[in-house]
Amino acid sequence: MRVSFVGLGVMGYPMAGYLAKAGHDAVVYNRTSAKAEKWIDEHDGSSALTPAAAAAGADIVFSCVGNDDDVREVILGTDGILAGIERGGIIVDHTTTSATISREIHAKAAEKAVGFLDAPVSGGQAGAEAGQLTVMVGGDQDVFERAAPVIDCYAKAITLIGPVGSGQLAKMVNQICIAGVVQGLSEGLHFARCAGLDSAVVIESISKGAAQSWQMENRWQTMVDGEFEFGFAVDWMRKDLGIALDEARHNGAQLEMTELVDRYYAEVQAMGGSRWDTSSLIARLKKV
Amino acid sequence: MRVSFVGLGVMGYPMAGYLAKAGHDAVVYNRTSAKAEKWIDEHDGSSALTPAAAAAGADIVFSCVGNDDDVREVILGTDGILAGIERGGIIVDHTTTSATISREIHAKAAEKAVGFLDAPVSGGQAGAEAGQLTVMVGGDQDVFERAAPVIDCYAKAITLIGPVGSGQLAKMVNQICIAGVVQGLSEGLHFARCAGLDSAVVIESISKGAAQSWQMENRWQTMVDGEFEFGFAVDWMRKDLGIALDEARHNGAQLEMTELVDRYYAEVQAMGGSRWDTSSLIARLKKV
Repeated sequence: MRVSFVGLGVMGYPMAGYLAKAGHDAVVYNRTSAKAEKWIDEHDGSSALTPAAAAAGADIVFSCVGNDDDVREVILGTDGILAGIERGGIIVDHTTTSATISREIHAKAAEKAVGFLDAPVSGGQAGAEAGQLTVMVGGDQDVFERAAPVIDCYAKAITLIGPVGSGQLAKMVNQICIAGVVQGLSEGLHFARCAGLDSAVVIESISKGAAQSWQMENRWQTMVDGEFEFGFAVDWMRKDLGIALDEARHNGAQLEMTELVDRYYAEVQAMGGSRWDTSSLIARLKKV
Repeated sequence: MRVSFVGLGVMGYPMAGYLAKAGHDAVVYNRTSAKAEKWIDEHDGSSALTPAAAAAGADIVFSCVGNDDDVREVILGTDGILAGIERGGIIVDHTTTSATISREIHAKAAEKAVGFLDAPVSGGQAGAEAGQLTVMVGGDQDVFERAAPVIDCYAKAITLIGPVGSGQLAKMVNQICIAGVVQGLSEGLHFARCAGLDSAVVIESISKGAAQSWQMENRWQTMVDGEFEFGFAVDWMRKDLGIALDEARHNGAQLEMTELVDRYYAEVQAMGGSRWDTSSLIARLKKV
């Protein structure tokens, strides 16, 4: 299949690689062209000078960029994907954005008889590199069915959540749940330290029961050690929580703890932790 | 072995049963004697009229009662366990209490050459009935080694966390972590509802990744359905969080979210949810 990938960041770079390895005829575009050059050195495929040029002739065009504004530019801009893609094509946006922009793009794509799926992912850089992402999709059933087998080459699970925007909304649910888990785990480990307990022994004891979580299993050690130079950055988490809180102002959801944790992440940023992993919430807890 | 069990509540009743089934010579005591009568009807064993009488001649005396005051009464009271137990005996308290009272009892028991372990459990009523509790123990290594094989008959895991009080402190870590997980999950599911998503599909999609938790896997459905008439009661959770917050005032731990969730549980109590499961935090979230 003729595919294109726009945005070769830490996520997009390996995802586009899996498309090429699966035998698809891939054209890539990246704002900083050096990365696209590096990509075509390492993979079968070619690069284009604009998103529109990358999209020309493609069956499916993927994008994975930074935020709503970036998505607007690479899809709806003058030289954007929608300007280049042909009737019957599909755009799959893997960026985590607002549901609002997903709906806007879906409507504009439909005018051109182009399909659109909002398809944010979870699993982070490690998941992208292993081709084991979880993909939450919003859009039309028939478009989903055509795109899913292609997305599959870098996914461990692909779920059609509902109509356009639903992928983004599901991703927000994911981030809200993580905010609570990480803050609870942070306070628990901080309490253990203040109480003079051996955290390893405590975690060994409680990690099979009702307090268990992925974060506990995979992050307790680095949290105790104060190692945060890896993983999903606080800046990105704040972007995602900001989107969720914005959406909540529209749909009426009461997200008190999420708001609070968002402010805690702002404190971590102020401590110089913008690039630290999401688990760095524990870093701001101080023995008083 | 000659064992005694003081406190035949929803936890103690089946725990004492497992001791009898394991072939130990068991004497039970309960404040409301009807429950002790029922217990001896159903098990091999006998009952005593006071904790002291139950403890007389026992190698190990177990207690599982309500709170610090109850523990003080059944262990240190005039007719309490310590008044009846002989030199060389061991007291194992399964109640969730402050670490302070555990240390006080440990010191008083030591004066009488009696061992003491604080050994709160997790796993709830279902875990007690299945003989699959997680036991977090504080105390002396040699006392732990003598008691652990007996505790084993109703446990799936027994961990010596550290010196006396450490079992209680580990249980507090457990409850603090749960507070964060449940509040995050509540806000996530509430957001999903306000956003018009199908929660089952969202959970299916996100429950294998970084947002995963025991609470998500085991409680999402009942939370969405508003079913709370089961499980670990809000009243007990508030008791445990109160102990944790008290302890934090002494050890200097900063537990902002735990304090907040404790207040949220107070709101659930005010809604009539005192006996509802801990997962009922979602019940107070309203679409605004």
